[in-house]
Amino acid sequence: MTIMQLDSFSANQWIAPAGNITPIASAVSGEIIAEASADDVNFEAMCEHARTVGGKALRALTFHQRAEMLKALAKYLNERRDALYQLSFQTGATMRDSQIDIDGGIATMFVFSSKGRRELPNAHTLLDGNVEALSRGGSFIGHHIYTPLKGVAVHINAFNFPVWGMLEKLAPSILAGMPVIVKPATDTAYLTHACFQMMIESNILPKGAIQLVVGRPKEMLDHLTCQDVVAFTGSADTADMLGSNANLRKNATRFTAETDSLNASILGPDATNGTPEFDLFIREVAREMTIKAGQKCTAIRRAIVPHSEQNAVIDALKTALAKITIGDPSLESTRMGALASQRQRRDVQEKIDILKTECTQMFGTDEGFEVSGADAQKGAFIQPVLLHCENPHIATKVHEVEAFGPVSTVMPYDDAEDAIALANRGLGSLVASVFTHNPTTATEFLLGAGSFHGRMLFADRDSAKESTGHGSPMPHLVHGGPGRAGGGEELGGIRGVKHYMQRTAIQGSPRLLSAIGGRWFDGAPEIAEAPHPFRLSFNELQIGKTIHTEPRTITLEDIEHFAEFSGDNFYAHMDDEAAKANPFFPGRVAHGYLLLSFAAGLFVDPLPGPVLANYGLDNLRFLKPVPPGDTIKVRLTAMEKSQRNDEYGEVRWDVEIINQDNEPVAKYELLTMNAMD
Amino acid sequence: MTIMQLDSFSANQWIAPAGNITPIASAVSGEIIAEASADDVNFEAMCEHARTVGGKALRALTFHQRAEMLKALAKYLNERRDALYQLSFQTGATMRDSQIDIDGGIATMFVFSSKGRRELPNAHTLLDGNVEALSRGGSFIGHHIYTPLKGVAVHINAFNFPVWGMLEKLAPSILAGMPVIVKPATDTAYLTHACFQMMIESNILPKGAIQLVVGRPKEMLDHLTCQDVVAFTGSADTADMLGSNANLRKNATRFTAETDSLNASILGPDATNGTPEFDLFIREVAREMTIKAGQKCTAIRRAIVPHSEQNAVIDALKTALAKITIGDPSLESTRMGALASQRQRRDVQEKIDILKTECTQMFGTDEGFEVSGADAQKGAFIQPVLLHCENPHIATKVHEVEAFGPVSTVMPYDDAEDAIALANRGLGSLVASVFTHNPTTATEFLLGAGSFHGRMLFADRDSAKESTGHGSPMPHLVHGGPGRAGGGEELGGIRGVKHYMQRTAIQGSPRLLSAIGGRWFDGAPEIAEAPHPFRLSFNELQIGKTIHTEPRTITLEDIEHFAEFSGDNFYAHMDDEAAKANPFFPGRVAHGYLLLSFAAGLFVDPLPGPVLANYGLDNLRFLKPVPPGDTIKVRLTAMEKSQRNDEYGEVRWDVEIINQDNEPVAKYELLTMNAMD
Repeated sequence: MTIMQLDSFSANQWIAPAGNITPIASAVSGEIIAEASADDVNFEAMCEHARTVGGKALRALTFHQRAEMLKALAKYLNERRDALYQLSFQTGATMRDSQIDIDGGIATMFVFSSKGRRELPNAHTLLDGNVEALSRGGSFIGHHIYTPLKGVAVHINAFNFPVWGMLEKLAPSILAGMPVIVKPATDTAYLTHACFQMMIESNILPKGAIQLVVGRPKEMLDHLTCQDVVAFTGSADTADMLGSNANLRKNATRFTAETDSLNASILGPDATNGTPEFDLFIREVAREMTIKAGQKCTAIRRAIVPHSEQNAVIDALKTALAKITIGDPSLESTRMGALASQRQRRDVQEKIDILKTECTQMFGTDEGFEVSGADAQKGAFIQPVLLHCENPHIATKVHEVEAFGPVSTVMPYDDAEDAIALANRGLGSLVASVFTHNPTTATEFLLGAGSFHGRMLFADRDSAKESTGHGSPMPHLVHGGPGRAGGGEELGGIRGVKHYMQRTAIQGSPRLLSAIGGRWFDGAPEIAEAPHPFRLSFNELQIGKTIHTEPRTITLEDIEHFAEFSGDNFYAHMDDEAAKANPFFPGRVAHGYLLLSFAAGLFVDPLPGPVLANYGLDNLRFLKPVPPGDTIKVRLTAMEKSQRNDEYGEVRWDVEIINQDNEPVAKYELLTMNAMD
Repeated sequence: MTIMQLDSFSANQWIAPAGNITPIASAVSGEIIAEASADDVNFEAMCEHARTVGGKALRALTFHQRAEMLKALAKYLNERRDALYQLSFQTGATMRDSQIDIDGGIATMFVFSSKGRRELPNAHTLLDGNVEALSRGGSFIGHHIYTPLKGVAVHINAFNFPVWGMLEKLAPSILAGMPVIVKPATDTAYLTHACFQMMIESNILPKGAIQLVVGRPKEMLDHLTCQDVVAFTGSADTADMLGSNANLRKNATRFTAETDSLNASILGPDATNGTPEFDLFIREVAREMTIKAGQKCTAIRRAIVPHSEQNAVIDALKTALAKITIGDPSLESTRMGALASQRQRRDVQEKIDILKTECTQMFGTDEGFEVSGADAQKGAFIQPVLLHCENPHIATKVHEVEAFGPVSTVMPYDDAEDAIALANRGLGSLVASVFTHNPTTATEFLLGAGSFHGRMLFADRDSAKESTGHGSPMPHLVHGGPGRAGGGEELGGIRGVKHYMQRTAIQGSPRLLSAIGGRWFDGAPEIAEAPHPFRLSFNELQIGKTIHTEPRTITLEDIEHFAEFSGDNFYAHMDDEAAKANPFFPGRVAHGYLLLSFAAGLFVDPLPGPVLANYGLDNLRFLKPVPPGDTIKVRLTAMEKSQRNDEYGEVRWDVEIINQDNEPVAKYELLTMNAMD
């Protein structure tokens, strides 16, 4: 087998390993299969290339354009998965493990692409929250707006998910408009490298958008500024070393870390032996121990169970673990492959020894165990190890020491409060799961443990069939956790995109802020001349385009007629005396939907034209009751536009209904789909 | 004058200064007026008291209850402002300066109280964003929820705003449900102490909610955990020292810093001499230099002006500065008081000397200047200093060195791009302002400079009368900035509250997540038995209470009648051929508001009862057109409740209209106000 030379990709050039070369061994056979070194890589030049070429090109695109690129990339990789699976076996991963890594990474890109198009505007900036009234007269307002950082995102990834680890960080960065330098962990960098190479070959991203450094570049963090981001996944020690870099600290460079985590899974007080939740718990603990040979930041390290259930739990887990076949991960019969390297195996064994000072080993004899199709010693194979800690309140190591392999500890609790206290002894984790069918118990655990955990899974019979399980970070949800877990946040849908953008508070007149935000604000100029706004195509329509309608008087007959026609005979519309007894009404008043309907009657231009459909309405508030005899008028103003595709785009209209005294009686945002030309 | 003994307040006890005592001098007379020392303070005990007593009591309250306490506190302080003004003179502050500090701090509490009641639910937790569909069948969903951190917020404040600095950090913490330890800067701690004492006297907050430490406690950061927060305002050096504390790093304790900042104000290319924006710029620079004697983190340090305008700017600023009377801040005639201490004056003078290596001094002779009613040397008085930097691209110190006093530098630019580059040379700041009346220029500056600045003010003639100005952080808007400004964020309305809470991703069945979140999610159980949900009071109504209505068929006559009645003759309802040509419609379809009206007719229970009013509607989406002949039915489910006052509360209803094939045709959230009992 040829030894793979893991080139770095810097400023549009492939740079071969040179100088002090690190050999990389197969996790399965122990043979050297790849070589890496970043000695010839000029990291400063990479950063500069990212900022001046990649960032500029990405920022010229809209969120939707970047989202389309992510989709194209995901499709491209999806068609080439097979080549990646073959390499993935070398990392010790079974096909099922590889699917989590490779398919999971690609799925993450699809989700970000979809969310980018559905939840972000087709624009370059993103308004955050609502406009803030900062003055009585309305001439001075405030808002918040996100713009992409003008630097480079340096992604330092862990060895356990060579593909997912790259793609889950890359997708939100690219969507935000920020170029990326990927630095994979060297042990499994050949797989990352292969996937990265595909992305470059695809030619989908603009030049400079992504670069790769394999090996340890010199002075990596010394060239970063306040516009850069470092996102790290790995050990707490490395995180501390990186995070205390003087240059990073001086520039307050954003640094996010996802590190160690003693994740807990709690068997609820109600989930006794015989309940569906008990069985789900056993299955989940066994699965979390053995998937990726337990090399998951989110794996269950502590199984916290009612005192009365601990023997049943241990017995059931022993039975489940005995069925785990270990061996060459490319064999279909193999349920668990190897750890990623001999170094990892040594580390896991050391950690097991530490844990055993407080625990009894219930499974995993340390003696020769069966390994199919591979050499147990040359490959980094290890048997699952189940530990039992009888006194988890006295013990400390079980709450502090993470053996990053197929290792879990069962420990008993007395009551829910006690279980919460034990879960929180991990001092911050990525995920905790609670197996319970009782909503009160679930709520109690959230209130007691929520602030210690980045994610909490509440597992029961109702969600069992569709649950993605304890260990899977979802692109829709935040991944990361407080304290020992590093204090960082990644993913979480659009939340993850914002990590690569700066939120800036903006203040000024409605006219200036409307121009900046691409959204019309109350008080900004109205374009009120002809034609009717419904006569203008999406492209012709300007923000601020307005129509003030003719007035219409609401009669008691209108109200009675509407009640009869709609069937809505609510007393506030029909019974003057009863309406007067209501704290909000002066007597009989018009139906809210009568107002909406009459308003449409006043502003709609009936003939075919660019407005294709009313597809919704947001933030409707009825501000003042309208008794019969009141006369309403409507102002309709083009508020915001977002192109949807080549044929049409969404228009959001600011609508205000006022009465004869110019008092607003209702405000809302109307949504229409408008033809492009 | 008696020397004030600045007791700390620890675990409900006042602890007198003891041991190594720091004397504090009046900024005006130079006399010793107070003494501080925290030698007898047990900081670890304070933290423990906060966590076990204060936090527990605060978390037992809802957001609204905490908001009411803030309002009561703000009122209490507001009535006692005069005593604080008197002390404030000793810090060198004029009455106008004191109003910014004292009234500004109280106003911040009022804003957080009001936002807490308007923008947060009357609940203990806060759902974030939308529910996430994680499975096809809908049995497994995700969401995010904020819970209060279970630790203590340590607020380390700067000397320049002894009251505002305390209250602006305290308000969001208390609203979040997190207890606070206030550590004021020693130089002006007597004012903070007086205000703190009033809060304790008021007896409004529960025990342990706030504590005070005056002076430097030992090992302040060594007892903090992953549940605590440190929020610091002060110098970059101190921030670095605190932020690199090994215990903080190990626990990933949240640490936010607001530090140095070379804030820029840019005179737009259009804002030439003679325009209103030019005059506004001059007024703002002169004001920012002299308010609080320039001791504001947000003050304008760099005035970036078109090359052609620099002489006019310098002349106008010299004229404005010559009018600034300096002296005893308690005199009405005084426009600028003293710096906070002799140490500050020495520091400012050192920094001016550094800046003068690159700049020419245009105002402020350093010679004896007039000081009314006080001794220029005994008090920490200083004259405003205007500098001119001719080559700001070559210069480095003007972009790096902050003289924290009445000191600004005028520097020229060539074009907008150049001005942006200069503004960004500050490498991260709290605020930049742009004086322009041109919306395109404003947008260009936001896109070019936004990511370097925490706040940008766009000033022009339209907002001049009501603008709060360059230097005022508003409680509604984020305060903080990237890079040199420390990388932190404070305030920003509810955003600031979230800094004291943990966001946790939650996953599970709709039933469990509905219980946890206090919100009904699609797929959670429906309580469908009698009575009609409108017959139940706010207190009786359970989340999930549902009515499925009778069906109603929509006829062509209905559509035509509705068109005539409402006046909405849009062609999609009236002209079959034209409707068919529309990409969204199969032919003539019912009006959206007809559907809403008929839906109300189907679900409304007409007689007087607990439902008092329909006050609005959110997130309405029309999902499928309804042609004549279709039959609709409605499901109405109680989704969320939030008590408003003793008489009534808001109920949010999830409404779905389906057709005869059980396909959803419209979805929305209906808002009603319901009587409590």
